[in-house]
Amino acid sequence: MSWLAGISLESAENDNLGVDWVLQYEFGDLEQSQAIAEFRTLMADLTEAGLRVQVRHGHGKALLVCIRVPRDHLGTMVQQSRVKDWMYAITHKLPSATETSATAETPAEEIRSIYHAVTWSKELGGAGITPEFGKWERITASFPLHDKDACTELLRAWSRKTVLTIRDLDTIRALFGEKVAFYFAFIQCYSIALVIPAAMGIVGWLYFGPYSIIYGSALCVWCICFVEYWKVREFDLAHRWGVRGVGVLKVNRPQYKWEKEIKDPITGQVTRVFPGWKQFLRQLLLIPFASVAAVALGSLIVVTFASEVFISEVYDGKFQGYLEFAPTIIFSLSLPFITSLLTSIATRLTEYENYRTRDLYDLAQTQKTFVMNFITSFLPTILTAYVYVPFGKTIVPHLDIIKRAGLNIEMAHKDFQVDGSRFQQEVIYLSMTAQIFSFCEEIILPYVKQKLYQKWRNYQDRKAGLTRQRSFSKATDLLLLDPPGETPFLQRLREEADSDGYEVEEDILEMCVQFGYLALFGVAWPLVPLGFLLNNWLELRGDFFKLARENQRPPPIRADSIGPSLLGLDFLAWMGTLSTAAIVHIYRGNMEEVHLSSLLLTVFIAEQAYLAIRFIAATAMQKIFAETLYQEEICRHAVRKDFYEMSAGIASGRAGSPGDSPGRVRQRVRFHERVNVYESGTDTGHSDGSPSPTTEKVQDDVLKGSDREAAFWNAHSYDTADAGAKLIRALSENPMEEKSAKRA
Amino acid sequence: MSWLAGISLESAENDNLGVDWVLQYEFGDLEQSQAIAEFRTLMADLTEAGLRVQVRHGHGKALLVCIRVPRDHLGTMVQQSRVKDWMYAITHKLPSATETSATAETPAEEIRSIYHAVTWSKELGGAGITPEFGKWERITASFPLHDKDACTELLRAWSRKTVLTIRDLDTIRALFGEKVAFYFAFIQCYSIALVIPAAMGIVGWLYFGPYSIIYGSALCVWCICFVEYWKVREFDLAHRWGVRGVGVLKVNRPQYKWEKEIKDPITGQVTRVFPGWKQFLRQLLLIPFASVAAVALGSLIVVTFASEVFISEVYDGKFQGYLEFAPTIIFSLSLPFITSLLTSIATRLTEYENYRTRDLYDLAQTQKTFVMNFITSFLPTILTAYVYVPFGKTIVPHLDIIKRAGLNIEMAHKDFQVDGSRFQQEVIYLSMTAQIFSFCEEIILPYVKQKLYQKWRNYQDRKAGLTRQRSFSKATDLLLLDPPGETPFLQRLREEADSDGYEVEEDILEMCVQFGYLALFGVAWPLVPLGFLLNNWLELRGDFFKLARENQRPPPIRADSIGPSLLGLDFLAWMGTLSTAAIVHIYRGNMEEVHLSSLLLTVFIAEQAYLAIRFIAATAMQKIFAETLYQEEICRHAVRKDFYEMSAGIASGRAGSPGDSPGRVRQRVRFHERVNVYESGTDTGHSDGSPSPTTEKVQDDVLKGSDREAAFWNAHSYDTADAGAKLIRALSENPMEEKSAKRA
Repeated sequence: MSWLAGISLESAENDNLGVDWVLQYEFGDLEQSQAIAEFRTLMADLTEAGLRVQVRHGHGKALLVCIRVPRDHLGTMVQQSRVKDWMYAITHKLPSATETSATAETPAEEIRSIYHAVTWSKELGGAGITPEFGKWERITASFPLHDKDACTELLRAWSRKTVLTIRDLDTIRALFGEKVAFYFAFIQCYSIALVIPAAMGIVGWLYFGPYSIIYGSALCVWCICFVEYWKVREFDLAHRWGVRGVGVLKVNRPQYKWEKEIKDPITGQVTRVFPGWKQFLRQLLLIPFASVAAVALGSLIVVTFASEVFISEVYDGKFQGYLEFAPTIIFSLSLPFITSLLTSIATRLTEYENYRTRDLYDLAQTQKTFVMNFITSFLPTILTAYVYVPFGKTIVPHLDIIKRAGLNIEMAHKDFQVDGSRFQQEVIYLSMTAQIFSFCEEIILPYVKQKLYQKWRNYQDRKAGLTRQRSFSKATDLLLLDPPGETPFLQRLREEADSDGYEVEEDILEMCVQFGYLALFGVAWPLVPLGFLLNNWLELRGDFFKLARENQRPPPIRADSIGPSLLGLDFLAWMGTLSTAAIVHIYRGNMEEVHLSSLLLTVFIAEQAYLAIRFIAATAMQKIFAETLYQEEICRHAVRKDFYEMSAGIASGRAGSPGDSPGRVRQRVRFHERVNVYESGTDTGHSDGSPSPTTEKVQDDVLKGSDREAAFWNAHSYDTADAGAKLIRALSENPMEEKSAKRA
Repeated sequence: MSWLAGISLESAENDNLGVDWVLQYEFGDLEQSQAIAEFRTLMADLTEAGLRVQVRHGHGKALLVCIRVPRDHLGTMVQQSRVKDWMYAITHKLPSATETSATAETPAEEIRSIYHAVTWSKELGGAGITPEFGKWERITASFPLHDKDACTELLRAWSRKTVLTIRDLDTIRALFGEKVAFYFAFIQCYSIALVIPAAMGIVGWLYFGPYSIIYGSALCVWCICFVEYWKVREFDLAHRWGVRGVGVLKVNRPQYKWEKEIKDPITGQVTRVFPGWKQFLRQLLLIPFASVAAVALGSLIVVTFASEVFISEVYDGKFQGYLEFAPTIIFSLSLPFITSLLTSIATRLTEYENYRTRDLYDLAQTQKTFVMNFITSFLPTILTAYVYVPFGKTIVPHLDIIKRAGLNIEMAHKDFQVDGSRFQQEVIYLSMTAQIFSFCEEIILPYVKQKLYQKWRNYQDRKAGLTRQRSFSKATDLLLLDPPGETPFLQRLREEADSDGYEVEEDILEMCVQFGYLALFGVAWPLVPLGFLLNNWLELRGDFFKLARENQRPPPIRADSIGPSLLGLDFLAWMGTLSTAAIVHIYRGNMEEVHLSSLLLTVFIAEQAYLAIRFIAATAMQKIFAETLYQEEICRHAVRKDFYEMSAGIASGRAGSPGDSPGRVRQRVRFHERVNVYESGTDTGHSDGSPSPTTEKVQDDVLKGSDREAAFWNAHSYDTADAGAKLIRALSENPMEEKSAKRA
């Protein structure tokens, strides 16, 4: 862990006690006996997969299952994963074929294998625990524990520096996996690139003012070039992190329905296929979905917009001051309903589209979210820019339908005047105030809420604990009371189990929307990129704080790109070019003199310019970064060369063990190891040939941790399933009822 | 040669006598002694590279050097090439590492290795013969001989069938290499795809008439889908033929100037690098070039067009009937001058851009040719469609500058009327008459010319031969006279040496232009695709006839695409959508009622539709043909698997010889082999470590051909260099002069 060398605080509260993974089992809606049966199955599945378990009670009617993967089992899984990576040409360093176990290079690699051990289906050698799906609907959380020390150290380091280095990104990758690292790489790359338009913006603001042709063109060129550059950067990072093309080896989703199985004649590998054309036809449903979303959200926005304009600028009656806020309030209240309705439609559609892997599923879902986000984020400003300001004078007077409807309402008798600066004001609001609001809403508010909720929860639990204390046997009491040494750890465990999962796609989307504001409306106020630049300094750190402190640690999933948002960036750069051209054309001179034909001509020319610049930029990037892009090829070439030499017998001596060190199985020690006290009595042999440790191995796994760790894993000498059953009984019975029953 | 199993005519005239490669050395402009010295160097270089040579005289002051690569040398080169292919992941079948020699699977593979043996630099193990460049400027032809029997059989078979099958394409590939095969695959795929618009066209012609919105939209969609489909098809074919990504292992052009050498740390391979950004900056010169070309060709076309319109429709004076043709004639005469001037600029530019490989160079050159071709092919019709017909009434009367210049010319006093159907007539002409004309011009005319020229040449040679007979020694006489058994072969040899090289890019470009006519103007006359479909049936066979009968056999170069024309197709599909929209808008109703703004709106919408359809089509193709596109990955995966298994020692027994047959060196017998009579006395050992056969090997190479073959290779028992020197002396001295000298 050279990348974390500086961190060796190892404070007692931050120790994870060797817990690799945590499941939260909520049985509130179940009969006691059913719950116990289900929990016993869970325990059986986990131990059958060769995992060690400990159970503790959570908040309310919930159990927390702490899982530990024996180190040799983990080593085997890591090695298997590496061999698979190598075979699918994701990585290019031949793993040693003589060793059956490998040491993970990063915590993320380790946790990924743990994640696989817990979630993969039994055929693949996992325990088949699929949270919130099918049989395991009641598993409401499934997460690894945070490495508090590392996160604290990183947060501290980042608050002191201006620019993240590639080593920081490597650290993120080592802690949270590539998918999360790609988000931080993107925001870092984007923020650094923002320096250019920010500088241009300052010049533009001083010398050209808003709606300048020069600044607008420069901004569009920057947008296009940035997107093309990011594609190269992404490729490079994927190579650096050894994840290029990682999508192919992702396992099937449990929900995936295939139509036929194809056995590859060469590799003997069985692929489960769902015809591409069918999926494509189903994907075409995106078009009606987008239309429905556009109509639903669009009409909501238009109505809100129109009534707001009407009330603030036409209506002049009673309560005008209060009514002005009504449309916005109604909008804010009804938007979540519509959005959640649309999201549920989107989820069903994506489900119907039947993707093989979780990645593809997420990709399709994000696409739909993007469509909705695009409409809600951009439509209001688009309406201001292209409808209200240019056509307001014609349209607004027609808004007096209420009057025409016969109602007697006082109207402003003055001639209606369009507020020409409204568009610019909105853009300023978007780039400054809205960014700060969204930061608070996204990071600070949830943090405060979470803290308060936890306080309340702890109070509730204490109260319940006091009543319970008097009503159960001593053994159950011991289970319900946290051992003193474990208290801070269990408290943290319960907090993390209560937290939300971290959705990296949402953060990426947020940055895309910001990029969209800049591309579409940036020309209206040259200081927009400066505002975004400052905001992103905070945003980057805030997002990391949210990830490390507020949310559950995400499973370290691999990815070789920021995903569908890349397409979104392309789209926004294109829209941006058209929009910038139109805005400059409309707002630059006298708005009344603008002709439709000249406007169309401007936009048409802008589009051709966009196509040309994008083509040139893409070609240029590929030429300039040819060497970078070629690195991957060189590695592949080297593999082939080694193979050929080995087959020629030239390199037979050397190539036999091209891995790191031959012979002995090295295992990384992550905490002080002591004595094995825990004996897995329930572990049985596996009937299938799946790669899982034998019983001997599990027993061999020596837990040489600290005293506290040993104490944790050795806690209840009886069966964990029994312990869980007892806890379920204790928690599910209402102590008050029991008391009254006793009294009766 | 299972693919040619049906052909076993083996007629004596078509026998190539074991000649692998032919060089034509022309020394007309050199002093006799210089020519002899140069020729001796040539002989030394060839024999040093381990090649066998025979020399015969050509037409006029030219020698023909017949080259034969000893079979074991050839086997080594084929094996080396396969190993390299494998290492660069072009192919996925591990070549046996224990064998040093391999048998070519196709004639093309064999000839490619022969081509390398002749043209590669000495460091790479070739003879370093670069025709028409540097030291070897006087080598005016360098080609393999045609396989007449195979070509005849193919021509016969194709004339009987309607549609080429994939086996026919495989045959083309086996005979002429992948680059040529890709052209035939393209024209086949394009022609089959044309059936759809042809059918639509017939319906459109019967029910909708020209300028129909429905037919136009369908045509545009077809164009976009076809281009996307071809991309998939190309990918698939490249996989079938094992040439994906073949560009990387092409050798450096001798003209390439590198700036630094980079040694790869892993593979130890040295790459000679020229910075990408420099090349990109140089490539930007394409923009001024395109502008110059557009201005030069554009003004020529505009002037021709204007004067033609003026003479035919305004002028009414003397010789009107004759003068009408004058502009076209002047245009036809001046176009070659301008084109050749532009081509020479283009060549210089491409040279300056400094490409590493011949492929990249050709690509850049073809791009420039495309620009020129685009202007000359499409501008006249574009002028008719968008300038003459809509604005003719306004512009044409202004053409009377001649009158205004004071000249007294009779003008048509009638009101000028624009010929509204002129555009449609031009389109009909383009799709029918012009295609037939170009077919004659491209295939029939050169054939007739060539035949006549050959007759004349033979007559000249006979005359020269008669005079020579009397003036030289017997030994030289023997050299000058063709041995009776060789006469038909040598005649064919000389004919082929005189032929032009086959330029596959030109043929591809011709098809692109045809596609462009269809995409841009097809909506004006629905029967255009039908005309093209019929034309292409003939074109395909005509092109093969040209390739097989009229031109030299091209070196079987590999490629994994039709090259830059693919970009051209994309561009034409885009232009086509805009153009179709505009034409339908302008020509559909009353032309006078067309407003600029509505026209712009139509074109703008069409462009968005184009972008959307292309995106959907590309996605759909990738979904639908996912399995096809994934084949390559499976093969790569299998290689990795084999490697891993081999390194694990599991497959050590099997993987040792995964090639075809172990142990013995198999050599394919291409003609009956007899006794070795030819002893290469000049062959010397090589000082560098380059892969070339040792002296023993060359002497071992047993030529067991037919008697006639043995006679050919055994012809002159003395040194070939001496034979050449004698021939040079005999041919360079003018017999007439000699005679007169004798007389004097």
